Amino acid sequence: MRGPGRDAAGGGTGSRGTGRESAAAPRWIAGVDIGGTNLRAGLIPFEGGVPGVVRRERTRPERGPADVVARVADMLRSAAGEVGRGEVAGIGVGCPGPLDRKAGVVLETPNLGWRNVPLRDLVAEATGLPVTVDNDANCAAYGEWWQGAGKGADRLIGLTLGTGIGGGIVIGGEIYRGASDAAGEVGHMSVDFAGRLCACGSRGCVEAYASGPGIAARAVEGLTEAGDSRLAEIALNGSGRVTARAVCEAALRGDAYSRGILTETARILAVAVANLVNLLSPDVIVVAGGVTAAGEYLFGPLGEEVRRRAFPSAVAACRIVPSEIPDTAGMIGAAGVFKRTVYGGA
Amino acid sequence: MRGPGRDAAGGGTGSRGTGRESAAAPRWIAGVDIGGTNLRAGLIPFEGGVPGVVRRERTRPERGPADVVARVADMLRSAAGEVGRGEVAGIGVGCPGPLDRKAGVVLETPNLGWRNVPLRDLVAEATGLPVTVDNDANCAAYGEWWQGAGKGADRLIGLTLGTGIGGGIVIGGEIYRGASDAAGEVGHMSVDFAGRLCACGSRGCVEAYASGPGIAARAVEGLTEAGDSRLAEIALNGSGRVTARAVCEAALRGDAYSRGILTETARILAVAVANLVNLLSPDVIVVAGGVTAAGEYLFGPLGEEVRRRAFPSAVAACRIVPSEIPDTAGMIGAAGVFKRTVYGGA
Repeated sequence: MRGPGRDAAGGGTGSRGTGRESAAAPRWIAGVDIGGTNLRAGLIPFEGGVPGVVRRERTRPERGPADVVARVADMLRSAAGEVGRGEVAGIGVGCPGPLDRKAGVVLETPNLGWRNVPLRDLVAEATGLPVTVDNDANCAAYGEWWQGAGKGADRLIGLTLGTGIGGGIVIGGEIYRGASDAAGEVGHMSVDFAGRLCACGSRGCVEAYASGPGIAARAVEGLTEAGDSRLAEIALNGSGRVTARAVCEAALRGDAYSRGILTETARILAVAVANLVNLLSPDVIVVAGGVTAAGEYLFGPLGEEVRRRAFPSAVAACRIVPSEIPDTAGMIGAAGVFKRTVYGGA
Repeated sequence: MRGPGRDAAGGGTGSRGTGRESAAAPRWIAGVDIGGTNLRAGLIPFEGGVPGVVRRERTRPERGPADVVARVADMLRSAAGEVGRGEVAGIGVGCPGPLDRKAGVVLETPNLGWRNVPLRDLVAEATGLPVTVDNDANCAAYGEWWQGAGKGADRLIGLTLGTGIGGGIVIGGEIYRGASDAAGEVGHMSVDFAGRLCACGSRGCVEAYASGPGIAARAVEGLTEAGDSRLAEIALNGSGRVTARAVCEAALRGDAYSRGILTETARILAVAVANLVNLLSPDVIVVAGGVTAAGEYLFGPLGEEVRRRAFPSAVAACRIVPSEIPDTAGMIGAAGVFKRTVYGGA
């Protein structure tokens, strides 16, 4: 692209670093991940790699968007101070949807309780930097593709098992968005057409079984018949409620009932994963979220059941792996989305 | 693209048609669709459009690949004779899989009973023309994108309800193949994880419910309790067996039991379609196959149930339509695949 004439013309100003292009390139992109519970903001090297700084605090969405945005701006200012000089190119924000990505507006998020919030413009005004906004599940999947467990894969699907099940599809390095910008809703794949009612109104969505609340609900339902389970005791010593976290903890401490719940969770999740394998034959499926703390109690039966259900050639071509950046995939991916949107390429 | 200089240089030889380029371009591409029951071969205009000639006969795969290939060559010779002069660029063949597309070898097709057949080379030797071979379900979906009900759609999914349920995904005008070349297996999406056993070994695949044999099996299972159904009588007057065709016929003649079977079929199919809508947010889903003869008895409840289950924005962006070229989509698509493979573009 650059001919000798341009190099010569630019020679006089390229005194820092290894040459004009690297000196002129920004050093950082800010990534922000606004979750229902946790708020993360950090600086990601422009060329990718380990975040320079990561700040975390509670989101406290009930204080309203202006409060959250002001704290995001503070977190980023403090982060920029810590890394010292180096230009920040802009800010990528990941946020629960649905949202109007092009307008940068959060339409309605049950997880935050916000409605019609012009998030992009609010963050841009508070920081003076250019901003992109994207769906958090898409950001997490893109983060796994850009810097995580599926780095550079031709076809990647990201799943985050949390309050819901977030999904994102990255094909050829691009987030696959579909005709409506709403693609990637793996959590609302029904694997049991007459099964559990889902918050979305459908039945049998994998989210109704394998999200945190889905796991907890199934665990509670069976608990009365599981007389010798330590789950109730562990729950009482923790939050006082049976949660997916308590189920994982009990399983890791040897509780057979809780291990059974995790095995069942893995098998039901595997039906959705096998459907993805048969349908899209991805190179990698990255699974993130709190439940992955269960390790082999989750991934063991998950892999077994996928092998039992999906086509061998597609199974052989697909790795099913835990996230390598479980805490920061969304933040890193949000920064990556900013970079791709504004600069093109990864 | 064509400057005046090139026009001038070509002027002396461009005596036929409208100019040199159109005279030099081949007029036809042959398409062949080898089904378990029916064999179709025809000539498709190079630029797309209505097939010039279509020949049909029984496949009779039990006579072996050499016999079928010899008849394909005869059909194409006779077709070329009928359209008169005009170059045939080559032949696209669609065939049930799994197959090694790059080697042009049919690996193992339960529907044909063939194993390790070098189909591409056999057809090329018998005809003296270049040949491509591709999966029949992919060809059908591509045919719908190239010339059918989803012409030019950015994201199309094709479903063919037959002995099995074939699926194909076309994104940006390209067949989506995935990491293993096995993507698009919509028929083996499980929508009932503990449900009906499928021939693939999994449970609850939509194919086990909404394929021809799946519909017939469900109809027979409920028949003893449906005392006043005319289905048994209609079946006896037809093939003597309860088939999906008999169910459609009985439904169209007013049989309430058979209409109920079709409604249930549509609702279960809708679960898979809603999953596709949520996951891929396609612009169009084209449904083909014998059962679509049931018309609104199928498409009515199908659309209703998809709207009930999938996200409104993704539903709004997606048309769910019957095939416009139900008999020839596979053959036309096979020709289209040849064109794209050899010439690039559609």
